[in-house]
Amino acid sequence: MRESQTNPPTNLAGDLLLHLDDRPGEGPLPLHERVKRALRRAIREGRIEVGTALPPSRQLAADLGCSRWAVTEAYSQLVAEGYLEARTGSATRVRWSNTAEADARRRTTHPATEARYDLAPGLPDLRAFPRRRWADAVRAQVTTAAFTEFDYPPPGGHVRLRRLLAEYLARSRDVSATAQDITMCTSVTDGVRRICHALRAQGITAVGCEEPGWTRLREVIRAAGLTPVPIRTDEDGLRTDDLAGHIGLRAVLTTPAHQFPLGTVLVPERRAALLHWARQVDGVVLEDDYDAEFRYDRRPVAAIQGMDPSRVILFKSLSKILSPALGIGWIVAPPRWTNHLHETDQAATQPSTIDQLAFATLLESGAYDRHLRACRRRYRNRRDALVQALAAEMSGDMISGIAAGLHLILRLPPTVNPASVVSAAATRSVRVADLAAYHATDAHTDHGLVLGYGNLADGMVTEAVRRLREAIEESR
Amino acid sequence: MRESQTNPPTNLAGDLLLHLDDRPGEGPLPLHERVKRALRRAIREGRIEVGTALPPSRQLAADLGCSRWAVTEAYSQLVAEGYLEARTGSATRVRWSNTAEADARRRTTHPATEARYDLAPGLPDLRAFPRRRWADAVRAQVTTAAFTEFDYPPPGGHVRLRRLLAEYLARSRDVSATAQDITMCTSVTDGVRRICHALRAQGITAVGCEEPGWTRLREVIRAAGLTPVPIRTDEDGLRTDDLAGHIGLRAVLTTPAHQFPLGTVLVPERRAALLHWARQVDGVVLEDDYDAEFRYDRRPVAAIQGMDPSRVILFKSLSKILSPALGIGWIVAPPRWTNHLHETDQAATQPSTIDQLAFATLLESGAYDRHLRACRRRYRNRRDALVQALAAEMSGDMISGIAAGLHLILRLPPTVNPASVVSAAATRSVRVADLAAYHATDAHTDHGLVLGYGNLADGMVTEAVRRLREAIEESR
Repeated sequence: MRESQTNPPTNLAGDLLLHLDDRPGEGPLPLHERVKRALRRAIREGRIEVGTALPPSRQLAADLGCSRWAVTEAYSQLVAEGYLEARTGSATRVRWSNTAEADARRRTTHPATEARYDLAPGLPDLRAFPRRRWADAVRAQVTTAAFTEFDYPPPGGHVRLRRLLAEYLARSRDVSATAQDITMCTSVTDGVRRICHALRAQGITAVGCEEPGWTRLREVIRAAGLTPVPIRTDEDGLRTDDLAGHIGLRAVLTTPAHQFPLGTVLVPERRAALLHWARQVDGVVLEDDYDAEFRYDRRPVAAIQGMDPSRVILFKSLSKILSPALGIGWIVAPPRWTNHLHETDQAATQPSTIDQLAFATLLESGAYDRHLRACRRRYRNRRDALVQALAAEMSGDMISGIAAGLHLILRLPPTVNPASVVSAAATRSVRVADLAAYHATDAHTDHGLVLGYGNLADGMVTEAVRRLREAIEESR
Repeated sequence: MRESQTNPPTNLAGDLLLHLDDRPGEGPLPLHERVKRALRRAIREGRIEVGTALPPSRQLAADLGCSRWAVTEAYSQLVAEGYLEARTGSATRVRWSNTAEADARRRTTHPATEARYDLAPGLPDLRAFPRRRWADAVRAQVTTAAFTEFDYPPPGGHVRLRRLLAEYLARSRDVSATAQDITMCTSVTDGVRRICHALRAQGITAVGCEEPGWTRLREVIRAAGLTPVPIRTDEDGLRTDDLAGHIGLRAVLTTPAHQFPLGTVLVPERRAALLHWARQVDGVVLEDDYDAEFRYDRRPVAAIQGMDPSRVILFKSLSKILSPALGIGWIVAPPRWTNHLHETDQAATQPSTIDQLAFATLLESGAYDRHLRACRRRYRNRRDALVQALAAEMSGDMISGIAAGLHLILRLPPTVNPASVVSAAATRSVRVADLAAYHATDAHTDHGLVLGYGNLADGMVTEAVRRLREAIEESR
């Protein structure tokens, strides 16, 4: 890492102000997000060099005429993304630049892997990828497939996989679907993108999004030309009563089995209310079933898709189960939407046929079920260890959302700034996420961190929590 | 196949007329394309049953108030797609329906594989897929990769592959690019789709498209909300002089090394004129480099990307070289567009990291070059055999576009209807494409067939040509 004593461009605030609204054709974003983007663009386009010290957040906030929070939030997100680096007692500096070698360097310091203690949510245990089984399955398929399998696959994906997947989803998630209702895609974001274009072609202009919720999907919705409409969630999940207040709204994206990031479950009355609303407005529910398999207190909560397959589109991928590097996902949709996808989506994206067949092999042999069971045990034990370590180092009642999934919520006292904790943790090689970052608006009182434990090695739990406590103490 | 004597719905023409313009938010299509789509939708949605005999083309044309050509063209395309079946001396019937089992049946009779003699353009020899080498490469990578490789890949794709690809493209295609300029995608259509969204965000509203040209890319452009503008081609390639006539046009999609489908090369003066135009209008050239490696008379024509990397975006995939089932493609673009892709494309689609690394292994070991050389020999020999057989059965001067690629053009006498030949050939298990199907408008005099030989087994060439001659004779 170069450590030149380059000073910030004197016009940094001016440069950022110029670019705060540089998103042609898209709706307004929260201020911290706009500051982050403007700053990231300035770094990418080489207007701020590697090694440059950024102004203190207080000063930049004053120059931009915004809250200090928006600046610290933007800084801490860019630290997490690897653009900036924060050191205790020193200015925040640019660590990455857009030069030919920077790209390679960035790969080796890729955000998710640069932190020794990775508690960012969204990853399964990458150490547990069933390497040998995957290689065997690929070899078995690629050496025995008919030569015609090397042709373009049909628009929805390989039928053998879709048939096995329909059976598996019926058995494990109470999903009601035939092979025909399944469309293979490369990820949940890819699936949501494709469905958004279909929704738009049918005159739907907005999609209700859980608040807080997964930021990237809001961005995908916006990029498809639709407006994400924040719908609040509480301890019973999405507030379905609020839907009626949005006249004209006909689509809503939700995580009923395990709300992201809060970790709640959509209660039965609201499941019914959600489907009732969808029927009333002739609408559609987009169900993101991202990590529902990992439930530790009881059987996984079934998908709402099974309650009304004509009104629900379900999205799922292997990213939280095997690995996001595989790029294997699927959409389960009623014929109306599936036909629309297959008929109009000329640039249909789907995984390699060979990989589809390899996945089918894992499903058919039971290896996939065994992998899931082993993961469930591993993650439950790790969650227990994390909760125990947090309870030992901090007050136990700050923890919530522990019944399922690969992350939990750590509430912080009002005196502690979560964005500062994210930065202070990063300087200690600990990667965590600010709960506020998953909000589309600044109007909320959520004050805490999202701690993922999917990709945290068991032996690192105690040390990660110790470092996190230090970061919290420093941020008081 | 069921063979019920179901009669066509008496209101078929009415039903079709109702749906002829069912493409909300998209521009006008040629009439035969609209008839095809309306008919396909009627079949998909179950309004016409399997086994139903369709009215004679003359009658339906009269009912729809269109030319008989538009109807025979629509019928023959749907025969090729597997929705309809045509038998000599009998009515055209519906062969596929949207029932649960139909999907599986359709897979086994997938268009590209149902015809015993596959002369449709667009496929490499699927029999030649290097199965063992691919399986070995996957195993080598999946068993030795760092666990962090199973994380999300960076937005542009794996850096190791992009670096090797940049070297390879410089060496084989005179492409001037660093790893950073390359973005992995799943296919040329996927790449064009993604770039179209970027173009649109920058205020570009139309894309010039070669006339004739690859239909699917026109549809992708349209689906992205841009208008495809037909630009004629002649024996020297794209008519660059015509570009100036389209005020406001700032993007053009072209196949300079080997025009699809005509097989011509963009001559040097026009290459210069194209780049001059792009600079003048502050525009961009989209270069589809789909099969440039297979040139039989001299070295492959270099990509125009190398002449002005700041004005050209190059698209390429492995679909014509290894297999479309792999879903591996790439975009080479100037930093401006690459940055835009990586920053805004939240649902970035790219191949599995494992597959990217496997492809990198083939590039690094030289196996990819050896495969290409072997393919070039194989295709040249097959082309020679096809040209010889055509010359023996028909008049040799009807053939053109044979110097490169995986297809050639067979001009037909004015008395023969190409659409009828496509149908008549299909009844003889021969799959060929009507040259007219690649035109965006009906205003042209191209009268012939496109014959692909990439996926035609050597031993079938003579018999395929014999059957094709019969089909032509029957269509006089």
